[in-house]
Amino acid sequence: MDYDFRLEMKVRDYECDIQGIVNNSVYMNYLEHTRHEFLLSKKVDFADLAAKGINLVVTKAELNFKSSLISGDLFFVTLKFNPVSKIRFEFEQNIYRSKDEQLALSATITGASISDTGRPIKVPEIIEQISV
Amino acid sequence: MDYDFRLEMKVRDYECDIQGIVNNSVYMNYLEHTRHEFLLSKKVDFADLAAKGINLVVTKAELNFKSSLISGDLFFVTLKFNPVSKIRFEFEQNIYRSKDEQLALSATITGASISDTGRPIKVPEIIEQISV
Amino acid sequence: MDYDFRLEMKVRDYECDIQGIVNNSVYMNYLEHTRHEFLLSKKVDFADLAAKGINLVVTKAELNFKSSLISGDLFFVTLKFNPVSKIRFEFEQNIYRSKDEQLALSATITGASISDTGRPIKVPEIIEQISV
Amino acid sequence: MDYDFRLEMKVRDYECDIQGIVNNSVYMNYLEHTRHEFLLSKKVDFADLAAKGINLVVTKAELNFKSSLISGDLFFVTLKFNPVSKIRFEFEQNIYRSKDEQLALSATITGASISDTGRPIKVPEIIEQISV
Repeated sequence: MDYDFRLEMKVRDYECDIQGIVNNSVYMNYLEHTRHEFLLSKKVDFADLAAKGINLVVTKAELNFKSSLISGDLFFVTLKFNPVSKIRFEFEQNIYRSKDEQLALSATITGASISDTGRPIKVPEIIEQISV
Repeated sequence: MDYDFRLEMKVRDYECDIQGIVNNSVYMNYLEHTRHEFLLSKKVDFADLAAKGINLVVTKAELNFKSSLISGDLFFVTLKFNPVSKIRFEFEQNIYRSKDEQLALSATITGASISDTGRPIKVPEIIEQISV
Repeated sequence: MDYDFRLEMKVRDYECDIQGIVNNSVYMNYLEHTRHEFLLSKKVDFADLAAKGINLVVTKAELNFKSSLISGDLFFVTLKFNPVSKIRFEFEQNIYRSKDEQLALSATITGASISDTGRPIKVPEIIEQISV
Repeated sequence: MDYDFRLEMKVRDYECDIQGIVNNSVYMNYLEHTRHEFLLSKKVDFADLAAKGINLVVTKAELNFKSSLISGDLFFVTLKFNPVSKIRFEFEQNIYRSKDEQLALSATITGASISDTGRPIKVPEIIEQISV
C-alpha cells in the first residue's frame, strides 16, 4: 500500500441498512471525513475555507465496491493526493477491513475549488501546501 | 431526455452541509431511493428481497457533479435501466433542478445480485421483469 | 387531530437500519423538515435566517416512540405551533402511518432564536408572523 | 461525573448543517453508537440480537440541547445505565466538548425489548448481564 494519509474508524450500527451492511452512501461520508482530516493535517481547514467563501467541492467520484463492511467492523481509509492542476486535484482512496486488510472499496475522487458564486478559483497556496 | 422512470423530490435542510449545499453523499441517497421506487413500480421490492436473502448491491458508481442543489430546491431524478447480464445491470441516472432543468449530477450505477454469503446469484426473473 | 400544518412523506429504504425499521434519529429529520416547511409556509426561511446570523435552534426535544415505520410506509407529520415567549416557541408534532393513522411518534420540540455568537435574541417579527 | 461508560468521538464535517453546527438528529446517532458500544462491552451485541428477532428499541427520548458542537470538536459521551423493569431500561447520557468539558447535551433514553412482531418481551438475561 502506498499512501499519504490513513485513518482508522469503526462501523456504527446506524450506518447499516436493511441488508445489514453499511449503506453505499455512507462510504462517501467515510471518504470525505478522511479527506478533511488529511487536509487538516496539512493545515487546510475545510470549514474555515467554506466560511471564507472558498469551497472545495467534489466534481467526480468513481467508487468500486469490492466487499461490504458490517456492524462492528474496524476499517481504515487510505488516501493518496495527486494535484492535477491549479484548480483541480485527485484523491486515490481505498477502504480496508482492518482484521484481514480485505479491500472494501477503491475510489478516485476529483475535486476543485470554487467561489461562493460557483466559479472555479485558483488556490495555488492550498495545492502547494498539500503537495509539499 | 430519454428515461424509464422519473421521481420528483425536494431538498431538505438537514441534507445540506457547512457549505450550504446538499452534501455529496446525499446524492447517493437520492439515486438509491429513485432506483428502489423504480423497482417497486416493476413489482420488485428491495426490502422483501433482502428479507429473502437476495441482496441487490451496487458494485460500481460513477458520479459527475455538475452543479449544486441548495435549500428549498425542487429536483427530479431520471433513470434508464440497462440489463448487462443475468447477474449485472446498469442504471443511467441524472438529477436535474426542476425550475430550469439544470443538470446537477449524472451518474452510472452498476448493480449485481448477491446471496447472504456474498456470492453472485442469477436473478433472471427480476431482470426480465424490469426489462419488459 | 388538531394541527396548524401537515406534511406527507414516504419512508426511504436508506433511512431503515439493521432492524428493518426507520432509525430513531431519522424521525428527528422528519420533524425538522416538517417544521421548516411550516416556517416556509409562513414566509420564514430557515436557510435565509441562518445566512443572516439568526439561528433557530432546538433547545429541547421530547420524543415518544409509539410504533415503527418500515420500508415503503407512507406517513404524515402534523405540527401545532405554540409561542411561549419572544425568544422561545414550542412545536407539538405527531407522526402517523397513513394507511391506518396509527401513531408512530409524538413529540414536543422547544426552539429558541440565537445569534451567531450563541446568545438568545428576540425575533418578535418571526413569532408574530407565525402566530397570525 | 458519575457514569458506567464513556466514549470519545470527533465531529465529522458531513454531520454539520447549514448553520455550521452539528445537526440535531446527529446527536441521536452519537447517543445510539455509545449505547451500542456500552452494550458490546457487556457482551450484548445489538446486531446479533436483531438477527435473532430480539429488538432493543427506544421508547422515549428526552434531549436537552445546551450548546452546539462544531466542525473539528472533540467530544465524549457518558452513559449511566438504570434498569427499570424486566422489559424496560433507562440510559442517562451526556455529551461534553472535550477541550473544556462544556455540556453540549443531556439526555434520558428509555428502551425496551420487543419481538419481531412488535410485542414487549422479557430479556432478563440481558438486563442482568448489564446490571452486574
